[in-house]
Amino acid sequence: MYIAMNRFKVAPDMAEAFEESWRTRQSFLKDMPGFVEFHMLKGHHHGEHILYASHTVWRDRDAFEAWTRSEAFGASHRRAGGGSPKLFLGHPEFEGFEVFQHIAA
Amino acid sequence: MYIAMNRFKVAPDMAEAFEESWRTRQSFLKDMPGFVEFHMLKGHHHGEHILYASHTVWRDRDAFEAWTRSEAFGASHRRAGGGSPKLFLGHPEFEGFEVFQHIAA
Repeated sequence: MYIAMNRFKVAPDMAEAFEESWRTRQSFLKDMPGFVEFHMLKGHHHGEHILYASHTVWRDRDAFEAWTRSEAFGASHRRAGGGSPKLFLGHPEFEGFEVFQHIAA
Repeated sequence: MYIAMNRFKVAPDMAEAFEESWRTRQSFLKDMPGFVEFHMLKGHHHGEHILYASHTVWRDRDAFEAWTRSEAFGASHRRAGGGSPKLFLGHPEFEGFEVFQHIAA
């Protein structure tokens, strides 16, 4: 299993608009082979910003990489960038992880 | 849902011992009310270290906080610190997240 995270720093007065942009965004993930699950996460205040993280679980790294090469990926990321005011500070930071241990309830 | 992460920086020559310490560690999570799932994650090289993250999903923040006050938490964290050589650099960085959006395959 492979987990792709993107970390976003959001100014407190932009937090509501940032969350709304995710809730109303069209997602293409459900149609992608190897997609398992997506969570959008809200962290705590860190000084001047709130930390958010998107968190997508894939069957394996190959499934994630196929998504990044897909037309749907290009379309959704162009849309996220274009037209709307910028809702986060700087750039999202990408982190990819392989799962090496799993314990379920 | 609440996700508790701890981020660890591990020197490449300690990576195997670090992973083994997790694989062989006794976990008490399964017995905790509100525990959903645990993943131990291996990220990529960042300069001089490899980023690892532990990632525990709880029913809600209250369930996580009850765990941090439990005897099992104290016992497992004393054991992790005591006796064995230190397998990571600096301190783990804790980050807690509330889930505000979920998409399943």
